[in-house]
Amino acid sequence: MLANLTIDSRRLWDMLMETAAIGGTPKGGIRRLSLSDEDRRVRDWFRRECEALGCTVHIDTAGNMYAIRPGKDMSRKPIAMGSHLDTQPTGGKFDGVLGVLGGLEVLKTLHQAGYETNSPLCLVNWTNEEGARFSPSMVGSAVYAGAYTQAQMDAVTDKDGITQGAALESIGYRGAEKPGALAFQAYFEIHIEQGPILDEENLSVGIVTGIQAIKWFNCTITGRESHAGTTPMAYRRDALAAFAEAAGEIRKIAIDHGGLATIGIVSAYPGSPNIIPGEMRFTLDMRHHADDVLKTMVTAAKIAIAEAATGHDAAYDVQPLQDSPAQPFDATLIAAVRAATEKLGLPSREITSGAGHDAMYTARVCPTTMIFVRCAEGLSHNEAESATLEDCGNGAQVLLEAVLAYDARG
Amino acid sequence: MLANLTIDSRRLWDMLMETAAIGGTPKGGIRRLSLSDEDRRVRDWFRRECEALGCTVHIDTAGNMYAIRPGKDMSRKPIAMGSHLDTQPTGGKFDGVLGVLGGLEVLKTLHQAGYETNSPLCLVNWTNEEGARFSPSMVGSAVYAGAYTQAQMDAVTDKDGITQGAALESIGYRGAEKPGALAFQAYFEIHIEQGPILDEENLSVGIVTGIQAIKWFNCTITGRESHAGTTPMAYRRDALAAFAEAAGEIRKIAIDHGGLATIGIVSAYPGSPNIIPGEMRFTLDMRHHADDVLKTMVTAAKIAIAEAATGHDAAYDVQPLQDSPAQPFDATLIAAVRAATEKLGLPSREITSGAGHDAMYTARVCPTTMIFVRCAEGLSHNEAESATLEDCGNGAQVLLEAVLAYDARG
Repeated sequence: MLANLTIDSRRLWDMLMETAAIGGTPKGGIRRLSLSDEDRRVRDWFRRECEALGCTVHIDTAGNMYAIRPGKDMSRKPIAMGSHLDTQPTGGKFDGVLGVLGGLEVLKTLHQAGYETNSPLCLVNWTNEEGARFSPSMVGSAVYAGAYTQAQMDAVTDKDGITQGAALESIGYRGAEKPGALAFQAYFEIHIEQGPILDEENLSVGIVTGIQAIKWFNCTITGRESHAGTTPMAYRRDALAAFAEAAGEIRKIAIDHGGLATIGIVSAYPGSPNIIPGEMRFTLDMRHHADDVLKTMVTAAKIAIAEAATGHDAAYDVQPLQDSPAQPFDATLIAAVRAATEKLGLPSREITSGAGHDAMYTARVCPTTMIFVRCAEGLSHNEAESATLEDCGNGAQVLLEAVLAYDARG
Repeated sequence: MLANLTIDSRRLWDMLMETAAIGGTPKGGIRRLSLSDEDRRVRDWFRRECEALGCTVHIDTAGNMYAIRPGKDMSRKPIAMGSHLDTQPTGGKFDGVLGVLGGLEVLKTLHQAGYETNSPLCLVNWTNEEGARFSPSMVGSAVYAGAYTQAQMDAVTDKDGITQGAALESIGYRGAEKPGALAFQAYFEIHIEQGPILDEENLSVGIVTGIQAIKWFNCTITGRESHAGTTPMAYRRDALAAFAEAAGEIRKIAIDHGGLATIGIVSAYPGSPNIIPGEMRFTLDMRHHADDVLKTMVTAAKIAIAEAATGHDAAYDVQPLQDSPAQPFDATLIAAVRAATEKLGLPSREITSGAGHDAMYTARVCPTTMIFVRCAEGLSHNEAESATLEDCGNGAQVLLEAVLAYDARG
């Protein structure tokens, strides 16, 4: 039988506010780019806090930090929690930070209660989740999971030409351990939702069932450039007219399949008020939590583009740009999170993650799940990002319950 | 009763080819920018040709050239013909040139036949119709019609900072006469159609009934920028989705009213593949030959934009950018052109000009009309611009007949 432990929401909130000052911006956000001096300072703080709880902090060659809290049976792999402490250039106070500090609050609660888990616990701060200074994003967890090499990570440069490897060394966080050498029994990550669903439905936390599949395309529709004043409507091969029809159909396809479709960039060529566009170039981002449904959606979208183009005697081209398969989370971990929300009587729902997270990579090598916390209006990557003390506390409480239940299963 | 005179199509064609060498490009087009040395050379050639026919060549302060062929009654105002000899940077051999050389061929035919008109005739070469080097376009005829001042014309600079006034003087074509001082009884202009209608309908010439009204707008639709992966379709305020709907409706409005609508420029902001556009900015060009119908079309387009925006919980703004009313041509002159096509048994139709021409300005101060000549696929402002010897000849023959009929009416 489990102890009834309660995390201290106010203490968690105070940690969020204390660390928010490291790189804090006048508008209430955080600018704490990966491997910057601000990142070094928050890492130093994190290490001290963990060591004060009796944890041993390990650092791997990717700069990932692992705070190990011993368990009764040290032959077991640790149950991990974590997220990231780096932020966007004008980031908020919760994206990533809540996952690390929520885990830290769990460790503090256990420490205060003198509670000893069966398995050791591990709290992780992943390097460069945001990808804002060094692209791509989620690089620390990617190297951990073997999806990206240490050499690839080291070679990436920021806009000043500084390599990620050099930046890692300059702040003193190039460890000696091999990424991935420390295997986890399971990995739990709390994160703000970064979308509007929980807020719109007035729910405190989300039981995350996986990360949706994403496909990106570069699309072109080529008609014929001609004079806006002398070309009758019936003689036009208007690429923009074809684009508009395709965009409408693609939107319907996403809605019909319960997925997402976004056209984020569009340009008309040659781009003059009195020239009928001969060419339209646009991006297409399509997502669904099921790979097969996404594939169906993409096929339908290609048909929609083809039909719209053909209807205007135009040609078309759809080139794949990025393809990330769906990453379902572990059923046992999801059940542990659901049981925790039920035990606590928290208003919650199952939800798919629309954005990528470090959990996407850990899921490739160990059972993984996430807990989402409501954020106001879904606003994120923004200094105005906002979550309540109560919701952050609920997320950490669910994390504590789920970890202890998972640990107790023997 | 009129003499049955026939223009010499081959001689007209040879003049087109001879002058095409002045600024001729390797791809078979012409680069003869207004007030350039090539413009000077073709002007010199034009003056010599006219003087050889017994014409007196007058030049006004705007550089417009007027070749006067005397008539029986010199108290009558001249009946004018004309167009322009300047071209686009990569222009074709017919745009503008056909109107001047077609008129010149009429004068040659009359000269050869020893035919004396009742009224004097005037053949005009307008300065800077294209607006390619000095903007705006149609400046010589605009100054002639009092729509633009000489001082405004002189002050405009090209990309090298040379003023139009200085360029006029440097090629020796700043005359002493006041633009507009020489009033016309009527003005006829032959021009290639620059659109596909005659070619598609297999017609040689067009009886131009006027220049259509044009309205331009800068439009904005403002929704809410949000994350492509975390924002469900139902929660989006997608400015691009609203734009696509509006674009489709506007196209239908143009078709339903027998007018034209073109969206030539469009941009999505902030412009990232995984951000739902929070703002769309686009231009709207709407045209119709009747001002009242264009007004109705614009009202309908504004409603379409409003409804599309509202449907996505977005705001919108439509700002007027340019407004040019319809310019109907003179019924008597149109009838003279129609009678000529009927007499000649030429396949023809009534047509509205979709582009602006010098005739747009002369129409403000004297009875005016135009004759369109078929050009291949409607291609213009392009070195591949193409018209046949036969169609050019037909245009000049119609011009001759219409001018003589108008002159004969007493």
